[in-house]
Amino acid sequence: MRNIKVIMSYKGTNYHGFQRQDNAITVQEVIESRLSKLIGLGVTINGCSRTDTGVHANEYCFNFFTDSPIPCANLLYAANCMMPDDIVFLSCEETPSDFHARFDCIAKEYLYLIRNAPAKDPFSGDKALFYPYPLDIDKLSRAALNFEGAHDFTSFCGSAGLKNQENRVRTIEYCAVKKCNDENYVKILVKGDGFLYNMIRIIAGTLIFINEGKIAEKAVPGIIAAKDRTKAGKTAPPQGLYLNKVFY
Amino acid sequence: MRNIKVIMSYKGTNYHGFQRQDNAITVQEVIESRLSKLIGLGVTINGCSRTDTGVHANEYCFNFFTDSPIPCANLLYAANCMMPDDIVFLSCEETPSDFHARFDCIAKEYLYLIRNAPAKDPFSGDKALFYPYPLDIDKLSRAALNFEGAHDFTSFCGSAGLKNQENRVRTIEYCAVKKCNDENYVKILVKGDGFLYNMIRIIAGTLIFINEGKIAEKAVPGIIAAKDRTKAGKTAPPQGLYLNKVFY
Repeated sequence: MRNIKVIMSYKGTNYHGFQRQDNAITVQEVIESRLSKLIGLGVTINGCSRTDTGVHANEYCFNFFTDSPIPCANLLYAANCMMPDDIVFLSCEETPSDFHARFDCIAKEYLYLIRNAPAKDPFSGDKALFYPYPLDIDKLSRAALNFEGAHDFTSFCGSAGLKNQENRVRTIEYCAVKKCNDENYVKILVKGDGFLYNMIRIIAGTLIFINEGKIAEKAVPGIIAAKDRTKAGKTAPPQGLYLNKVFY
Repeated sequence: MRNIKVIMSYKGTNYHGFQRQDNAITVQEVIESRLSKLIGLGVTINGCSRTDTGVHANEYCFNFFTDSPIPCANLLYAANCMMPDDIVFLSCEETPSDFHARFDCIAKEYLYLIRNAPAKDPFSGDKALFYPYPLDIDKLSRAALNFEGAHDFTSFCGSAGLKNQENRVRTIEYCAVKKCNDENYVKILVKGDGFLYNMIRIIAGTLIFINEGKIAEKAVPGIIAAKDRTKAGKTAPPQGLYLNKVFY
């Protein structure tokens, strides 16, 4: 059997996340049903990560096994013809049989995008959080540094994750807040070896509370130490979140 | 009565164009119904232009008369709270009573946006035409110059426009083809004193035919002279088209 590795990008607005569900349309289901039609054989894909409803991916990796002889270049072209406009395959290649998109992933980078301008952008409502008030980038950058390193991030884990994720120590390589090239947008970039449920969205929501003075700039180490979700900020909405890069 | 002038931007994907229709949702209807609620009095707006289903506006102007005493700054803020995410008011000001958004408009600039890259962008499917083949910008720029000046543009008028638009002479100030800052996008910019039905989309479709050699680079003057719609290229799809600026 061939093991095929695909890198893709998708806009999550119209999907209930990546992972297949019984009662809602998901990215996985759409890909599996269309790839199965294309190949003429049932396909089950291994995604690198779950994503929440409305969350996007600039670079997402999955792999699948198939007996199909279709060359990867043809598969890439044909898949992009069959997929809906909001799912795009960027590359497709044969990979060793022991490669697994989830288990072999050593790090991921997430991007949280904020529209930071007086007016909304009618073209990006489902692609960024709209936040019209001034953002103190320097202050937020300093606060964000406190997330770096290995910590127990229980305070930054949504309640649905508490049951399944017993070891809540994760290592964050960087957490940075920056203006985008388009000055009306600000991005939070976080790279780590793994993330708890809603972790980036709670980090983003905490940084917004820090911007507003609802949480002190220097409070982050104490919030982490408390291992108490109620000490952190609100969970920022999904439309600003992108799985940005996956590392193997 | 006060005469209020509004500049707005909207994403046209979810609307059957600007102008009110009996059986389909339009930008005008949404604005009139929400402004009427906001002001507490019925509002009828004069738009600067019709737009087709799925066509966008970066800068669109309308005006309306009202007895409401609400200051313009408050109106702007409140309207943006009430409008859907794909309609954004950029400015709102009182204007002399004889101002009319359509009749006083002396020129408009349209933008036709093309995603010109090997892969689709899952985030821009409804915001640009996807065209994966190389575009010869120099050749298209030269061909586009032929649209400039005063011409009878009957060859570039959709059939629905032929009935209402008897004088089909329009003056084009410029028609330019350029790479965008994001190199994966190409734009066609056209400014003129007025446009026939589907005119920019037929110009865009003709330039694409010229790119593909289906129409010769030097054929444009002959196509204009023919006053025959069948000589021009196809009507390019609506999602690439933006009313970009209006001039008074």
